[in-house]
Amino acid sequence: MRISILIFDGFTMLDAIGGYSVLGWLPGAEVEFVAERKTVIADDLRSGGMAAWRDYSEVETTDILYVPGGPGVEAQLANETTLDFIRRLHEKSTWTFGVCNGVELLAKAGILEGKTVTTNINARADVAALGANVVGARYHRDGKIVTTAGVSAGIDGALFLARLIAGEDVAKTIQLGIEYYPHPPFSYASPDDVPEPIREIIRTAEESLLFERMNATAPRFPQPSL
Amino acid sequence: MRISILIFDGFTMLDAIGGYSVLGWLPGAEVEFVAERKTVIADDLRSGGMAAWRDYSEVETTDILYVPGGPGVEAQLANETTLDFIRRLHEKSTWTFGVCNGVELLAKAGILEGKTVTTNINARADVAALGANVVGARYHRDGKIVTTAGVSAGIDGALFLARLIAGEDVAKTIQLGIEYYPHPPFSYASPDDVPEPIREIIRTAEESLLFERMNATAPRFPQPSL
Repeated sequence: MRISILIFDGFTMLDAIGGYSVLGWLPGAEVEFVAERKTVIADDLRSGGMAAWRDYSEVETTDILYVPGGPGVEAQLANETTLDFIRRLHEKSTWTFGVCNGVELLAKAGILEGKTVTTNINARADVAALGANVVGARYHRDGKIVTTAGVSAGIDGALFLARLIAGEDVAKTIQLGIEYYPHPPFSYASPDDVPEPIREIIRTAEESLLFERMNATAPRFPQPSL
Repeated sequence: MRISILIFDGFTMLDAIGGYSVLGWLPGAEVEFVAERKTVIADDLRSGGMAAWRDYSEVETTDILYVPGGPGVEAQLANETTLDFIRRLHEKSTWTFGVCNGVELLAKAGILEGKTVTTNINARADVAALGANVVGARYHRDGKIVTTAGVSAGIDGALFLARLIAGEDVAKTIQLGIEYYPHPPFSYASPDDVPEPIREIIRTAEESLLFERMNATAPRFPQPSL
């Protein structure tokens, strides 16, 4: 089972790695990290670099197309090469998996028209404006499209997808393998329950601080061709 | 605030990325990925490659020493250069953070003698044999040492550490930033509640399948010097 994880400059590392850490354990999984150019791709914090060792031309079809998010989504929304790649892979994929505002990329590629999805809490309006029905769920399935809320929700959504693919026993075994019995030191039930002042801080951080810092900061590592 | 994340061949990606995704958001955080040699370090599944862009000689001291785990720990337990690095960094660190069986590396380096820690459910006996008191918690603090259970527990432990460092408001804001309101499709309260047959499958997978596959499989990408 071929799993193709799309990465791009300014992606959010946990968006990609959360689901990878689940789906990569599926029996027969063959994961590849794919980017427009084969190099070390820099994440939003600029200190994390992930090897993309396949480029778009090397992936004709796949079983699972996996699209993470991050502030780097902004640039990809205007990158027709990336949008074409998503369209092409989605056409024949068995599953298409969108995490966080990676769902916005799926929407921009035109594959979510009339579909019901979830996404990062701060990307809901943008995704809805592109023609999808947005719900506030942690993960959601509509046909072969599985989408998740922000960042860490990729773990939950991938466990859900793992169950669809390989059954509950396998999915629960993976859950034990990554010891996903979460118990954060403080918790609301969902981001919608977070008080507005904290939500406003994050909106500001995501829209300006993180995005501006990312664009103003060079990756902390060389980016040779791989 | 300097945060030095140690990575090594066969580390588990989520062990490193879970906590990175929390601590990297702390105000003033400067994260670096450190390895014995500056290259693209391959994870346990061999498809994930992470840039290590500092080597041991470039990190004299740090504020947070972060040691993830993975099947690659086995080789590092016999690597005196790595153990020396851990000892040296721990001596002056403000915090030392061990995730999963990365805690076994801390123990082998001799810095957990008489300390109380948690670790991966399948590493408890080995860590205890090296002189630490092991509890079955998701995360635990003993002085400046914060340790966590397996893999995904690095997220919870890092949120706990973020609160110690920057206070609850900041930590809760980060929690919202990564939307960590986990809701896995099925859940036990802790890995100790998982029925024995499933635990046995994972023990076997971790001890043989994952470890053997890792050692028998070359990384799927080139590993140039960085």
